[in-house]
Formats: sequence, C-alpha cells, structure tokens
Amino acid sequence: MVRSILLRGFDQKIAERIEEHMVNQRISFLRPFVLTKVEKIQEGSPGKLRVTALSSDGKETFEGEFNTVLLAIGREACTRNIGLDHVGVKYNPRTGKVLVDEEDRTNVGHIFAIGDVQKGRLDLTPVAVQAGRLLARRLYGRQRTKCDYINVPTMLFTSMEYGACGVSEERASQMYGEENIEVYHSNFWPLEWTVPGRDKYACYAKVICHIPDSERVVGVHVLGPNAGEIVQGFAVALRCGLTKEQLDSTIGIHPVCAEVLTDLTVTQRASGATVVKGTC
Amino acid sequence: MVRSILLRGFDQKIAERIEEHMVNQRISFLRPFVLTKVEKIQEGSPGKLRVTALSSDGKETFEGEFNTVLLAIGREACTRNIGLDHVGVKYNPRTGKVLVDEEDRTNVGHIFAIGDVQKGRLDLTPVAVQAGRLLARRLYGRQRTKCDYINVPTMLFTSMEYGACGVSEERASQMYGEENIEVYHSNFWPLEWTVPGRDKYACYAKVICHIPDSERVVGVHVLGPNAGEIVQGFAVALRCGLTKEQLDSTIGIHPVCAEVLTDLTVTQRASGATVVKGTC
Ligand SMILES: Cc1cc2nc3c(=O)[nH]c(=O)nc-3n(C[C@H](O)[C@H](O)[C@H](O)COP(=O)(O)OP(=O)(O)OC[C@H]3O[C@@H](n4cnc5c(N)ncnc54)[C@H](O)[C@@H]3O)c2cc1C
Ligand SMILES: Cc1cc2nc3c(=O)[nH]c(=O)nc-3n(C[C@H](O)[C@H](O)[C@H](O)COP(=O)(O)OP(=O)(O)OC[C@H]3O[C@@H](n4cnc5c(N)ncnc54)[C@H](O)[C@@H]3O)c2cc1C
Repeated sequence: MVRSILLRGFDQKIAERIEEHMVNQRISFLRPFVLTKVEKIQEGSPGKLRVTALSSDGKETFEGEFNTVLLAIGREACTRNIGLDHVGVKYNPRTGKVLVDEEDRTNVGHIFAIGDVQKGRLDLTPVAVQAGRLLARRLYGRQRTKCDYINVPTMLFTSMEYGACGVSEERASQMYGEENIEVYHSNFWPLEWTVPGRDKYACYAKVICHIPDSERVVGVHVLGPNAGEIVQGFAVALRCGLTKEQLDSTIGIHPVCAEVLTDLTVTQRASGATVVKGTC
Repeated sequence: MVRSILLRGFDQKIAERIEEHMVNQRISFLRPFVLTKVEKIQEGSPGKLRVTALSSDGKETFEGEFNTVLLAIGREACTRNIGLDHVGVKYNPRTGKVLVDEEDRTNVGHIFAIGDVQKGRLDLTPVAVQAGRLLARRLYGRQRTKCDYINVPTMLFTSMEYGACGVSEERASQMYGEENIEVYHSNFWPLEWTVPGRDKYACYAKVICHIPDSERVVGVHVLGPNAGEIVQGFAVALRCGLTKEQLDSTIGIHPVCAEVLTDLTVTQRASGATVVKGTC
C-alpha cells in the first residue's frame, strides 16, 4: 500500500521500473491508499490481522486479512525536549528536523547540527559520518572542505537493486532546463542471467549530462545486481568533475555489468527505445 | 603447477593473497615446476592421466595421476604467414606480436595494429574495442585521443575475485621511487559474510598514491566479491586524475564493500597490519 508516489525524491522513471519489476514478481500494489485501521482478528482465523484502508480521493475502501503488517512510515527527530527553544535554534515543529546552512550551522552561530537531524538532507550513515568528520576539520583543523550533499551516492535494496549518484532526471531538468540535458541510457543483460535466460529488459543504466558544461555528468543511475558496488566508484568520478568524454574514453571491464556505463551511445532524446548490452 | 611466479605483471602482494586464499580452500600448488609429460594410463585406472614434471632447478621430479589436466599456457599471434616480412612490419618472431607506438602505429607509417596482436599490451576485449574505436576516430574523425594503456581496469575471476586499475605496487615503486609512493590499505568484511562468519581477513583493498603529485591515485586494487563491478567506476575516476583528497571527500554507500575505498586511513608504511572494516 502506497500513499502517493513510489520513492519520492528518487528518479521517477527508475522508480517505475522498480515497481514493474516487483509486479512481475507477483507483488501487488494498492495505491494511492492510506491505512485507516489494523485489527487483530479473534474469531475465524486467529493471529491474522484485518487491514482497512481508504483511497486518497476518499471514494474507495479496502479491507483484507494478512499474516504480517510492516509499516515503513519514516522517522522524525527527537528534538522537542532538548531545549532548542531556550537557545533559539530553529527547527521544523512537525518533523523535529533542524534548519542548517551549507556549513551545517544552525541559525545560532556556534551551534551546528549534523546527520539525520538536519532538515532536507539524505538520511544515510555515511553522510552523517562524513559531515561530522569534515565539520571537526573545519572547526579545529584549518580545513575548509564542506560536505557535498549533492553527489551523495545511495542505493535501494529493492529486489532489483538501484544505485544512484548525483541528480534525478526530473531535478536535472528543473536545474538546467530540459533542452540542456542529455540522457544516455541502455538496458544490460548480466552474464549470469544469460544461462537461465532471465528478463533481458530488467537491468538498466542511465547517465545524465549537462550539455553546456562540456557534457558534465550530473547523474548516474544503475538498476541491476550489485548496483551499489557499481555506483560507488562513479560517485568518486563525479567528485572529480567527470565529463561524458572522460567516461567514454575509459576502458571497460569485460564481462561485468558496470562496463555498460563506459559505452553509452543512445540518447533518450533520439529514441525512447534502448538496446540491450552485456552478453558475452 | 606453476612454472615461476603467480600472475606475472599483477601486483605480487595481491597475487600472494590469492594463492593463500586458494590454499585455504585446499587447492595444492606445485611450484616452481615445469610439465614434462602427460600420458594416458592404460592399466590400473584407465581414463586417468599420468603427469610428470621437473622442478625449475632440475633437482626434483614429480609424478601424479589426475582425471583432468588443464593447460593455461598463453597464446601467440598468428602473424607469421600473413606477409608482414614483405611490407617490412616488425614483430617478435617468438610470439608473433607486432611492435607499435603510442598511436598503435607499426614501424611502417600507414600500417596499424590493435588488439591482442600488439606487443606488450594487455590482452583484453574492451582494450581491443576501445583502441579500434579511437584509432578510427583519429584516422577519419579529426580526433586525437589515444588509447590509455596504463589505466586499463582488469579483473581476475579467481575464486576470490581481484579487480585492479592503474599500476601495481612494484611498478609504482619503479616509476616514482619507493619514498614517493604512499600505499593505503585495509581489510574489509562483506556484510553477507558476517552471518556465516567467513574469513575476516580475506577481502582487501589498496590504493597507491604518488605523493609529490598531490597524492594522485595511480593504482586501485580490490580483492573480494564483485571486485570487477567495484573497480570500473574507480577506473573512470582515475581517468579524471583522482587525488587521495577527492577520494576521501566522496561519501560512501553503506553497506556495500566499495565504501571501504572512500575511508582508507592506514598506510602500509605506518603499519604492516590492517584493520577490518565493513561490518554493519
Ligand atoms: C530501518 C533503517 C534502515 C536503514 N538502512 C540504512 C542503510 O542501509 N544505509 C544507510 O546509509 N543508512 C541507513 N539508515 C539510516 C541511518 O541509520 C542514519 O542515517 C544514521 O544512523 C544517522 O546517524 P545519526 O548519528 O545522525 O543519527 P542516529 O544514528 O539516529 O543517532 C542519534 C542518537 O542520538 C540518541 N539520542 C536521541 N535523543 C537523545 C537525547 N535527548 N540525549 C542523548 N541521546 C539522544 C539516539 O538514541 C541515537 O542513538 C537506516 C535507518 C533505518 C531506521
Ligand atoms: C580463454 C580466454 C578467456 C578470455 N577471457 C577474457 C575476459 O574475461 N575478459 C576480457 O576482456 N578478455 C578475455 N580474453 C581475451 C580476449 O578474448 C581478447 O583480448 C580479444 O578477443 C582480443 O580481440 P582481437 O580482436 O584483438 O583478437 P581476436 O578476438 O583473437 O580476433 C582475431 C581474429 O582474427 C582471425 N584471424 C587470424 N588470422 C587470420 C587471417 N590470416 N586471416 C583472417 N582472419 C584471421 C582469428 O580467427 C580471430 O577471429 C580471453 C581470452 C581467452 C583465450
């Protein structure tokens, strides 16, 4: 059951592909629906849970019985009772998240906030670790490097793994204008999938470039096995200001999935269709 | 049976670790030994093969019976009968490999050679593909990019996978002098290995930096599951001139193996011992 869209903030075309893959695996989605009640069933099938839900437009109701109900509803920050009001630090009263600037500084000059407690940043372990390390160095180590909250690589442990770094296609369009971005993409077929003949069109790679800035790569998206392992090194390359030309001039490793990224020639603009690469 | 050293041309400390891992898996090595004879056994255990070998110093002999004998003895180029001598193209008479310069040109100005037929280059599919593509562009497309034969990423499909890009530690020492290189390293423990409690010290990552050149990264070596997938992106970063500082300022992806590379603080110089990273 999904309240609105899947994977808000992530590339929506990729999110659609993930949904499609899960549906192919016979996972049913109910959306847009909001949970209204979960009850323990006493009579009939004891131990089961009766779930009631309402469609977002309020017109449809849903009722079903389940063995397990798992809620993934996000978290909020426990900042309401630590005295932020006394020192005047601004935070979002609904989520408890603290407002910070580029240097992780709150509105009160000598108070900083890092990690999940920050408003509007990605809630990830290595982000908290890196931000803390860099803040300590800025405060006490005469260094000036700020935490790069744009090129944060991340991955989703969906059954079809999704790894990404940089911006989504939607965000790139907003930031640079649709005519200024070029999206290179391809399906790929992992070698291990060829023998059992698994779905040729499930795995997918996409690179988003900012045309006027030497086709600088601003987003890398990979859907497939070990997507997280693949994306980490590309995140390093993004930190180095990677251009499409540099990407193309890198030699691939054959046969691994990641090589597809060094060999992207088809643009989304030229064709919605993609070719399938990666067979041995 | 190994004639001399394992994995000539590859980082030898890594080669030792691969050997160690294979020995732990109860694979026996006989080295340095050279095969002298393989015979089909007629009497006793028919179908089996009797192998005779001689130690490299000529002092010891070995005899054993096996079900299968697999020879991995390298290849040579079939260039002896294609008329190279008539046009005067130089090649190595022993291996058949053709001598080329940085632009893949033979000693005869209008004759080029690319792929495995080249002398002294890595015999890999994507190298041949990339070299061909770039040569065509240089000849007919007014481009000048040469194939980068140094930063060729490669991987070994040993039971413990090995992925590498750039130079080995031995080569870096030769090129820059031992005092000018810094080797950062760490063991890592893949998340999936924690539950079955597999060997904590089998997986290993190493980054070699050239100190006087802003600690530029000249070699990346990874020993562990999916090492090839991991190394591909780092090869792209090496093309972009990656420095250790840029590597360190990249945010990791948790929990994947590749994140260890963004968090290397221990140098080989400071300590032969390594820490183990990567548990959740
Ligand atoms: C189910 C789940 C799965 C996740 N999976 C991943 C993943 O795969 N990869 C990834 O990168 N990230 C993942 N995350 C996110 C990751 O856990 C967080 O981004 C990270 O822990 C943030 O670190 P932090 O130090 O900012 O906050 P936290 O780790 O939440 O630490 C805050 C600490 O402060 C303590 N605290 C709160 N109030 C007080 C108080 N008044 N006084 C003293 N102490 C207090 C809390 O008890 C807590 O220990 C996951 C999170 C969840 C919930
Ligand atoms: C067992 C094995 C495993 C390998 N695994 C990998 C791997 O995992 N990853 C990787 O990147 N590389 C791998 N390689 C290496 C890879 O196959 C080569 O690097 C690649 O094929 C080189 O391409 P090429 O075009 O230079 O040569 P080739 O692919 O060898 O092509 C040369 C062609 O020329 C033909 N030919 C020869 N003489 C003549 C003639 N007189 N007239 C006409 N045609 C002729 C040959 O028949 C052949 O088809 C492997 C090689 C082997 C043998």
